[in-house]
Amino acid sequence: MSHNAFANENILITGGLGFIGANLALRLVELGAHVTLVDSLIPEYGGNFFNIEPIKHRVTVNIADVRDEFSMDYLVRGRDYLFNLAGQTSHLDSMQNPYADLDINCRAQLSILEACRKNNAHVKIVYASTRQIYGKPDYLPVDEKHLLHPTDVNGINKMAGEWYHILYNNVHGIRAVSLRLTNTYGPRMRVKDARQTFLGIWIKRVIDDEPIEIWGDGLQLRDFNYVDDVVDALLLTAASDTANGQIYNLGSAEVINFCNLAEKLLRLNGAGEYKIIPFPPERQAIDIGDYYSDFTLIRQRLGWEPRVDLDEGLHRTLEFYRKHREYYW
Amino acid sequence: MSHNAFANENILITGGLGFIGANLALRLVELGAHVTLVDSLIPEYGGNFFNIEPIKHRVTVNIADVRDEFSMDYLVRGRDYLFNLAGQTSHLDSMQNPYADLDINCRAQLSILEACRKNNAHVKIVYASTRQIYGKPDYLPVDEKHLLHPTDVNGINKMAGEWYHILYNNVHGIRAVSLRLTNTYGPRMRVKDARQTFLGIWIKRVIDDEPIEIWGDGLQLRDFNYVDDVVDALLLTAASDTANGQIYNLGSAEVINFCNLAEKLLRLNGAGEYKIIPFPPERQAIDIGDYYSDFTLIRQRLGWEPRVDLDEGLHRTLEFYRKHREYYW
Repeated sequence: MSHNAFANENILITGGLGFIGANLALRLVELGAHVTLVDSLIPEYGGNFFNIEPIKHRVTVNIADVRDEFSMDYLVRGRDYLFNLAGQTSHLDSMQNPYADLDINCRAQLSILEACRKNNAHVKIVYASTRQIYGKPDYLPVDEKHLLHPTDVNGINKMAGEWYHILYNNVHGIRAVSLRLTNTYGPRMRVKDARQTFLGIWIKRVIDDEPIEIWGDGLQLRDFNYVDDVVDALLLTAASDTANGQIYNLGSAEVINFCNLAEKLLRLNGAGEYKIIPFPPERQAIDIGDYYSDFTLIRQRLGWEPRVDLDEGLHRTLEFYRKHREYYW
Repeated sequence: MSHNAFANENILITGGLGFIGANLALRLVELGAHVTLVDSLIPEYGGNFFNIEPIKHRVTVNIADVRDEFSMDYLVRGRDYLFNLAGQTSHLDSMQNPYADLDINCRAQLSILEACRKNNAHVKIVYASTRQIYGKPDYLPVDEKHLLHPTDVNGINKMAGEWYHILYNNVHGIRAVSLRLTNTYGPRMRVKDARQTFLGIWIKRVIDDEPIEIWGDGLQLRDFNYVDDVVDALLLTAASDTANGQIYNLGSAEVINFCNLAEKLLRLNGAGEYKIIPFPPERQAIDIGDYYSDFTLIRQRLGWEPRVDLDEGLHRTLEFYRKHREYYW
């Protein structure tokens, strides 16, 4: 994969101080791009200045909320690429405060797209969607032809947010592509709680020598992507015009249940324990059961596939948080 | 179909002065229900006081906008049934003002559901969705397993609005069902323009002795439901607990292209002409091509099927507007 597409290009990343945004920024700086990061630093979300420590003098940080139409109207100007990663990610929070989720995952997406339509129709946008919009799978692995029947407000709003992007591509010619991410993990993810990914809080507990809590029976299947592989997919779809207007699943052939994942993590850590506890009722109500994805489409069309396996990815992640825990706890 | 379910029941209809809302109210009053109509009377939408002329002393009218959270919070209390029909329906307006469409078709839907959850979890809700959320069909006839890939902002927001209802049914136990309406026509529709249905403006032009304009090649296929048949479906799904959490297409086996429909209408009118003109570009961009629906599911599960054919329905419609043009022009 050639990344020369990004040398000297002007890039805007929404959610740029967050988990995936910051990892993407690190790569883009390496590739010689001019990178501006937009982030609101809402305490419950993923933004963290330490995430960009290695490149802090080589990027522009602009603190703003994507719900702020006027700021976004200005910030999109002159960009070659917009990686649109800002979002409310917590399923549970979306059920408790559906309006905040709506404002961020729908209304702000519309206003970002409107800003591009008015001020920078030349930009290419990559939108981070989520497997959450499929809801409880009808069949496995889940491909892009699977019906969307989300089980929480977050899933519904992300579904709409994705479709605004496809619509603006099709109707207004603003080139856009959507990636439906599965569970993504790695350095720079939020580990204070399970708001971004349950693997965050697992990592923290393991390092703190506290037991991991698994909800349900522990046999739920999932697939995982190491964040560097997701960054690959973001860059690949940004640089490819055949991706315009398309929707691609990410995913992994390495499918694992929660108990086996916990055992793997504890083995890599060298110690620790997990316990299986009943689902909290408010989680049970929005649980999706087993999920893993069919990512044949992006593999065939663009040659993407994950390169970092779980053993390696979890090892690197543990190492990162052991070293930098003071910035994430 | 027994409608005894509604005698002495307390009913709220949002969009109650509009086309479908008013026809539903007429039927419910006949059935002995206590009916309250909520409508904002926004000039571009379908609300019209003349729509309820025959029952104006037998219903309660409450002028309010469904975006008004506080009013809705009060108005949902004590209702047995909520027919949630208020919406922005114009595809073109949704592209020009996506925020208004979002506020009405998403945010207001969430706040109505939140109001029910807090103040009246006992209510049964019927939501009026639309075939627009399917976008340009992948196959015909379109059944409920067809992927959703809307072609305009209105379709995206209606898709989210529908899923909020299903979610609140599944997670919060607020019984709700969604009907995906196809082209609905009949007395009390808006005929000033094509905002609600193109058949409205066709009827007006025919009666005014002006030529009907058909966009494109005139060979686009559509199915149509006479409004009384849609009222049947609303009542049937409201009264049925097997409908809870379900989504049903409405539709008709009488599939017809635009030219043949125009010819039928002109024949029923006794005179008139139509002309075929190129698509306006902003319409072409969001056009869905041929559409007709497979309504097997609601027929098999609930026994619904349309009873008024196009000849009869158009005849009744022409008669209504010839008699009452002063209230609709």
